[in-house]
Amino acid sequence: MEKRCLFPQAGGFLHGGDYNPDQWLDRPDILKEDIRLMKLAGVNCVTLGVFSWVMYEPVEGQFSFDWLEEIMDRLYAEGIYTILSTPSAAHPAWLDAAYPTVMMVKANGERNRHGGRGNSCWSSPKYREKIGIIDRKLASRFGSHPGLLLWHISNEVGGECFCPLCAERFREYLGRRFDQDIQKLNQAWWTPFWGHCYSDFAQIEPPYSNGETSIPGLLVEWKRFTTWNIVDFLKTEIRIFKELTPQIPVTLNFMSFSQKLDYREAAKELSLVSWDSYPAFHNDQETLYETMAKTAFHHVLIRSLKPEKPYLLMECTPSVVHGMPYNKQKRPGVHRLACLQAIACGSDSVLYFQWRKNRGGHEQHHGAVVDHLGTGDTRIFREVSEVGSMLRRISEAAGSMPGSGAALLVDWDNRWALNEGRLAGEQTKNYEKTCIALWKEFFRRGVEMNVVSTEADLSGCRVVVAPMMYMLRPGTAANLKRFVENGGLLLATYLTGYVDEHQLCYMGGFPGDGLSALFGVISEELDTLYPSDRNGIRFADGTHWEVYDYAEVLRVGSAEVLGVYAEDYYQDGAAVTCNTYGQGKAYYVAARVAPAQMWTLFERMLKEAGLPVKCLPEGVEYHQRRGEKDVYDFYLNWTTQARDVPVAEGEDLLTGHPVTENMLRLDPYGAAVIRRLAPEE
Amino acid sequence: MEKRCLFPQAGGFLHGGDYNPDQWLDRPDILKEDIRLMKLAGVNCVTLGVFSWVMYEPVEGQFSFDWLEEIMDRLYAEGIYTILSTPSAAHPAWLDAAYPTVMMVKANGERNRHGGRGNSCWSSPKYREKIGIIDRKLASRFGSHPGLLLWHISNEVGGECFCPLCAERFREYLGRRFDQDIQKLNQAWWTPFWGHCYSDFAQIEPPYSNGETSIPGLLVEWKRFTTWNIVDFLKTEIRIFKELTPQIPVTLNFMSFSQKLDYREAAKELSLVSWDSYPAFHNDQETLYETMAKTAFHHVLIRSLKPEKPYLLMECTPSVVHGMPYNKQKRPGVHRLACLQAIACGSDSVLYFQWRKNRGGHEQHHGAVVDHLGTGDTRIFREVSEVGSMLRRISEAAGSMPGSGAALLVDWDNRWALNEGRLAGEQTKNYEKTCIALWKEFFRRGVEMNVVSTEADLSGCRVVVAPMMYMLRPGTAANLKRFVENGGLLLATYLTGYVDEHQLCYMGGFPGDGLSALFGVISEELDTLYPSDRNGIRFADGTHWEVYDYAEVLRVGSAEVLGVYAEDYYQDGAAVTCNTYGQGKAYYVAARVAPAQMWTLFERMLKEAGLPVKCLPEGVEYHQRRGEKDVYDFYLNWTTQARDVPVAEGEDLLTGHPVTENMLRLDPYGAAVIRRLAPEE
Amino acid sequence: MEKRCLFPQAGGFLHGGDYNPDQWLDRPDILKEDIRLMKLAGVNCVTLGVFSWVMYEPVEGQFSFDWLEEIMDRLYAEGIYTILSTPSAAHPAWLDAAYPTVMMVKANGERNRHGGRGNSCWSSPKYREKIGIIDRKLASRFGSHPGLLLWHISNEVGGECFCPLCAERFREYLGRRFDQDIQKLNQAWWTPFWGHCYSDFAQIEPPYSNGETSIPGLLVEWKRFTTWNIVDFLKTEIRIFKELTPQIPVTLNFMSFSQKLDYREAAKELSLVSWDSYPAFHNDQETLYETMAKTAFHHVLIRSLKPEKPYLLMECTPSVVHGMPYNKQKRPGVHRLACLQAIACGSDSVLYFQWRKNRGGHEQHHGAVVDHLGTGDTRIFREVSEVGSMLRRISEAAGSMPGSGAALLVDWDNRWALNEGRLAGEQTKNYEKTCIALWKEFFRRGVEMNVVSTEADLSGCRVVVAPMMYMLRPGTAANLKRFVENGGLLLATYLTGYVDEHQLCYMGGFPGDGLSALFGVISEELDTLYPSDRNGIRFADGTHWEVYDYAEVLRVGSAEVLGVYAEDYYQDGAAVTCNTYGQGKAYYVAARVAPAQMWTLFERMLKEAGLPVKCLPEGVEYHQRRGEKDVYDFYLNWTTQARDVPVAEGEDLLTGHPVTENMLRLDPYGAAVIRRLAPEE
Repeated sequence: MEKRCLFPQAGGFLHGGDYNPDQWLDRPDILKEDIRLMKLAGVNCVTLGVFSWVMYEPVEGQFSFDWLEEIMDRLYAEGIYTILSTPSAAHPAWLDAAYPTVMMVKANGERNRHGGRGNSCWSSPKYREKIGIIDRKLASRFGSHPGLLLWHISNEVGGECFCPLCAERFREYLGRRFDQDIQKLNQAWWTPFWGHCYSDFAQIEPPYSNGETSIPGLLVEWKRFTTWNIVDFLKTEIRIFKELTPQIPVTLNFMSFSQKLDYREAAKELSLVSWDSYPAFHNDQETLYETMAKTAFHHVLIRSLKPEKPYLLMECTPSVVHGMPYNKQKRPGVHRLACLQAIACGSDSVLYFQWRKNRGGHEQHHGAVVDHLGTGDTRIFREVSEVGSMLRRISEAAGSMPGSGAALLVDWDNRWALNEGRLAGEQTKNYEKTCIALWKEFFRRGVEMNVVSTEADLSGCRVVVAPMMYMLRPGTAANLKRFVENGGLLLATYLTGYVDEHQLCYMGGFPGDGLSALFGVISEELDTLYPSDRNGIRFADGTHWEVYDYAEVLRVGSAEVLGVYAEDYYQDGAAVTCNTYGQGKAYYVAARVAPAQMWTLFERMLKEAGLPVKCLPEGVEYHQRRGEKDVYDFYLNWTTQARDVPVAEGEDLLTGHPVTENMLRLDPYGAAVIRRLAPEE
Repeated sequence: MEKRCLFPQAGGFLHGGDYNPDQWLDRPDILKEDIRLMKLAGVNCVTLGVFSWVMYEPVEGQFSFDWLEEIMDRLYAEGIYTILSTPSAAHPAWLDAAYPTVMMVKANGERNRHGGRGNSCWSSPKYREKIGIIDRKLASRFGSHPGLLLWHISNEVGGECFCPLCAERFREYLGRRFDQDIQKLNQAWWTPFWGHCYSDFAQIEPPYSNGETSIPGLLVEWKRFTTWNIVDFLKTEIRIFKELTPQIPVTLNFMSFSQKLDYREAAKELSLVSWDSYPAFHNDQETLYETMAKTAFHHVLIRSLKPEKPYLLMECTPSVVHGMPYNKQKRPGVHRLACLQAIACGSDSVLYFQWRKNRGGHEQHHGAVVDHLGTGDTRIFREVSEVGSMLRRISEAAGSMPGSGAALLVDWDNRWALNEGRLAGEQTKNYEKTCIALWKEFFRRGVEMNVVSTEADLSGCRVVVAPMMYMLRPGTAANLKRFVENGGLLLATYLTGYVDEHQLCYMGGFPGDGLSALFGVISEELDTLYPSDRNGIRFADGTHWEVYDYAEVLRVGSAEVLGVYAEDYYQDGAAVTCNTYGQGKAYYVAARVAPAQMWTLFERMLKEAGLPVKCLPEGVEYHQRRGEKDVYDFYLNWTTQARDVPVAEGEDLLTGHPVTENMLRLDPYGAAVIRRLAPEE
Repeated sequence: MEKRCLFPQAGGFLHGGDYNPDQWLDRPDILKEDIRLMKLAGVNCVTLGVFSWVMYEPVEGQFSFDWLEEIMDRLYAEGIYTILSTPSAAHPAWLDAAYPTVMMVKANGERNRHGGRGNSCWSSPKYREKIGIIDRKLASRFGSHPGLLLWHISNEVGGECFCPLCAERFREYLGRRFDQDIQKLNQAWWTPFWGHCYSDFAQIEPPYSNGETSIPGLLVEWKRFTTWNIVDFLKTEIRIFKELTPQIPVTLNFMSFSQKLDYREAAKELSLVSWDSYPAFHNDQETLYETMAKTAFHHVLIRSLKPEKPYLLMECTPSVVHGMPYNKQKRPGVHRLACLQAIACGSDSVLYFQWRKNRGGHEQHHGAVVDHLGTGDTRIFREVSEVGSMLRRISEAAGSMPGSGAALLVDWDNRWALNEGRLAGEQTKNYEKTCIALWKEFFRRGVEMNVVSTEADLSGCRVVVAPMMYMLRPGTAANLKRFVENGGLLLATYLTGYVDEHQLCYMGGFPGDGLSALFGVISEELDTLYPSDRNGIRFADGTHWEVYDYAEVLRVGSAEVLGVYAEDYYQDGAAVTCNTYGQGKAYYVAARVAPAQMWTLFERMLKEAGLPVKCLPEGVEYHQRRGEKDVYDFYLNWTTQARDVPVAEGEDLLTGHPVTENMLRLDPYGAAVIRRLAPEE
């Protein structure tokens, strides 16, 4: 497999993070000490300027970049590269005072006042004009700086604006979407219900909290519009860099599985993707392994946005996260392991927010590399330095790529539609949780599973799991049929194929759009169970699964029945089916069961697909990255006990020792990165 | 007893429900199929036009009724009658766009935007004008249609509007209420407290959430005003039909025990009453029997609004209810039983919302007779068809009437006053729950108990229970005294007679307005217990009741002490008393105890009153309807076990079999409707 | 010790309370009966006029005081004195109608409407003008009335106003605070974080809920400004009385440990302090003793606002409190005990809200001396009368003073900063709870501990406990050093010395501002535990403390390590230390442990300090007041069992009996007030 090094000049992985010298310009001693400590910690990259608008333009129309150039020069002189951010995420006070319409309007129709961040109207021409001026100046002045690696657009973008201008743009968007034909929209949104037909696009408003929140088609389209509008805004920023500095890639930092924006649409505009990872380490609801399995899912989700190259971990904290319910310290060794997890999943960086804690301001207690104490002899600083050393030891793996033959189907608009839908259970739909829980069963056996769109090309996949695919996008049914026809193994669940992209229910039987033929079943009823209700599924071999939350009553067509309900009025009715379709098979699981119980079925599918399964001890995570000749096996032990792991022979890059036995002992919170020759493909 | 058939032309009970062909006008195949399926399901009546304003008047001033006439004609040709609704419950988008003041203003003073339903300012002249135009056209065009049974005004009416116009009308209303004398109002509302005296009616505002919420008299009067204003609006609609189509009755559909409107005031304007019933079937907090006992209470409450004739069940669902926390399927047979319960309680209809599920829109997943699947071979459709057959089998009972010698006193303004009062316990007042729990003890023994106003003529009653009658209306005390004087048996509880209609506390001892003479006690203290606190009541015969939530400390006058407190500083103080007054007796229960424990006292009262008690197995419900010569005994088994019930001999109309034994076995979810000769009265 | 009698003319303690004859002016019979009953109850003082603005000025500019004079005369003639209140706490309706800007604006920027009380804009010139007119008239007319004891300003003052005028005054205040230098403010608030630098004071807004809530320095300064502004308003009222009636003292009534106002700033303007005490008697979360220990803390907190003289209990209720979740009756005897607690803590009054229950209005069910029943033969009236007798029996103790050698340090702005800080745990900081819990350990052993500011003169103290002193005020560190240097014993905890007065973190190690030298430790990490997490602290003598919520990882400098952590990555690290500094010692407890476990350490400190400890049975409270020659020992038994208490010999003023044994038996809810000769000082 070809290696795709993102930044060869940096010599492997990036290590560093957000650096805010703007706060310390009156303390040259601290700026100097920062560079000394960065080198001590193995930092080779910092992100500058994330919130520096007011530093670049302290007064409207008066610009100041000298301080930045001096910092970049000094860093570069010491071998430290720069990711340079546009400062669109936080407005200067003068901007909001002079142009109040640049601020976001909330769902109640009330305009925000100056404050916080992420407080912009995406449509505002003034905001776009003003940030465009800054961006052009940044591009012109720093685009050819040898230390510049990457443009970083805004920060953790997302959020809906309900201002009059956005409302007007929503109407224009709808006009285009429905060919300027209001009857098409009425039909698609089924507005005759409750007599809500529009006679003119001008009558349509966003779903204000005191307005129209009862049209499902409008609700989901508003989400899509917000994504469209944010991306439209991002493009005004990105366009400038593509024009003036085509040689410099562009990214923005995502936020795990955010509800606020369809990341797939944003990723299309980027050169590479990155994200900010803030798990709740050592919480009291789950084991650390479970926490980190969720984090691995998020890594894979982000990676899948741009699967052809590595991504970046743009932010994480070496110690406590600001603003959690409980700001607990990461235990010694856990930071190293979390950083290695990012690398194992395909990140080519470990970057922090932030280098040095701010003395005041909102996140003054968020864990940073350098604490208010200011010294390099803290536990946290030592652990960061160890990560620096570790990254250098495994630097040859930079640019190598993970591979996968399995995929989980996830769509943003399906999620929006399902979560807002007034059906099933108010508190029990749990779309994200269900996706992660299913994914985790594969993760536990070392099966690398991607997270992809229902419209993605599935030709590289053997096994596809599609949970709760309530809303089908226009091409989804055809895509899935093609996949199975060509030999793929597909598994879908209850709540599949109820509505089309406009939230219109399919007529003639769920799953709709032809999927009932693919699965060979029709779901006649959805039974929603109360939390204390239980049913079961019986299999011919005696296996029994416990059912909770949801159970569909099926009519079986061409499918083979694998499991039947154990109780209630649909006792003996089909609950798990398999339909042979073309070269492949389509499985349907009509009820919710604990994913761990479903493993028997997953295992059967993996076996049919010829995908290997690893036998990992509880709490051990596995990934593989593939280089041109070598593969790198990553083993991470998230437990406080030593773990014996079956491995292939090679060399452990972390220790430099050869691995000659088939069993390797991992220390508590220990890890191994074993390089070995790639098997012939 | 005389039979009062509502619609002789329909030949017995109505069966059918809301039908929205407006959504399918472009699908003549579906409209045709609808009629075929309706006949299959035994449907003889549909409700049209509930949300059809925008279909009647798609553009302001342009009207379109041909489609409706065509539908009504076609239905009538097939023997299906129409209930025709006015469409005032949901505004066309053009109306809100053109006349924003037709929309409701919430308690925070913010005007709603276009959206949802039930979003009208009751005072708006424009809204009244516009709906008046539609109503006149409907009356003129369809008033003499042979298929028309009934006018249906608006939908599930209720809700407060705080707009400037409503505020102004509130002030005018207060002027009339207090003889234009602001000092009368100040005295009634005790405004010198906190120095809140008004010097002019112009200073008074509705209880905005950011305004005056600290005057109890104002709070309750605002509720009364809202009822007055809604009824005033309803009268503008009803007046048109009374004028143009005096031969057609008028109803509107209530919503169980709504807080939003004093249904008694609205019922005065109607020809007959109806309601929409949506219990949470099979929930995890109570047995199905308990759920359905509550529903029976609601049936009886609605029936009591117009006790001289049968009422209608205007809406229910054959399967899941939209928008519940858990949208669980009704188990097979339960729908039939719930429909029979409505009939047993005195309804002359079983009507659904709705006939066919809408493809999109807010309630797209609400259970309907015809599912998105579109066929007549579903379980739900079959169960509806069985209801159709059942109604035909018992059709002779249509027009017969329930009878009762017991009553529970319930007032809307007492409830408002009590629930908003800052006394007793924030979470433990539970007025509705307490009413229902007391009522249920009679229900469990087959004692038909009406629910009536404290001002109602009680001359037909033998036993009256008056729970938590905190606020006394002007005539209440006299009414109760008259009832007892004439031989009635009355039971009242803690929290009786604290305030008058203006929320002024009675002076000289609770219960006020002379009731302390009726009961022969004065309540000196109200002790409010914490949830974990308990006390007890001891009786001479050794009976012990457990006390929770409330205990009043009594001074005993003329009353006989039946039970005394078991503990605490009021140990041995009177807790249950009986006062002989005229020909009757007035019981006072000064503390809250579980209603089931109170049965010993209720039984004593029923015995004294000569009212018979039935011995029903757990989970079996009983009602009786009386025709001219026959009575109909209804037995419903809400459990999943067979139940043996002692019955009188007759014929079971459901099976057509004679009942010759004194014991009848009811199947799980089974029922019997036994016709027998009425005993001589 | 010198006695400081507040009102010698009243002859001992004040007994009485808020009296609202305004509500009964049309009932001369009731006004007459009131005086008869007052004398029966031993009332010698009432508070008049608290909400009488509309009675004084029923129409703008028309005044009416005759009614008040008549009442005061009549009371005085019967030996009942008057505390006269300014009526600023509740606006007449005409005022709000005529001048809407006198009403408060909430954090969302929305102006309140007329209603309730405490609804004033502190800045409003019109409000100040109008209340000033009333106040001048009151002072002129009643200032020399022989019955007048005291001016009572407004009522339970507090609350933030976000109106444009207050916003403008906030900016002016900031200008003064930061020398009109916006860069000083930027530096102090660390605004470069998130690029939030201001270029002009005009850009600064209050922390509107939809505005700038992310600058910690702004948040705490807004609180300080609100205090400043409220006090500025109070001064406009107080100034009038100081000018016109310099002989009459001035007070206002506080509300236990209110978050809304820094009471220390307000107290500076007052002649004496008072407060309103409304504990949740007999609740189900704690024993009565625990409830009353909290109340004792509040008594001591209020007392400490003006430690040189007695304070007043301005309001309490003899029975139920209005508006609690559960309005439970006080058990017989508990009212007497609660009144005696006030006296024991240093109050020279027992006053009620209110004398007679209002018939209507918001608090119509709040317990009063005379109930709606209207008679003097109720339990409540009897208990009040007994309090009247009791106060006469112990009247010689009026003016005597409590003494103390221990102090707990509490600051309002530390509390605001800590509670709003985004660090540690969202739900577990519990500053108030922790203060009270620590204080209670001393209280349980009869050690009288004051509650004082971190800037207070500590020279009279031997032992000082300083919990969670997160924010250090400018002089705090020096004050504490001075205290210890001079031989004081100081104990501080985790979360000490993190930020300065502007919320800037100290650099160079916590606790900052030089306190790390005082304690001889630096806190390197704060570990926040989840609720189910536990650690421990081991001491050399085998003692073990359980750790929850918080644990700091220490670097030990000059301090001696007393206890070390038992587990986790900081096992064996210092947890409890002691640093000898000058003549004294500074203890540091780095983790949260149950205060009861900390007693071993407190005992050691008290012993070192030579402060005596009493051995009190569980549930018994002790205080001492000192007169010129005598001391008064108060013993209160909060349990329902008799308790034997070790006492010194003297005379029990409650019984008049000599106490000659060293052990006294207290009845359930019993008490003793033992007068004995003061030991030589």
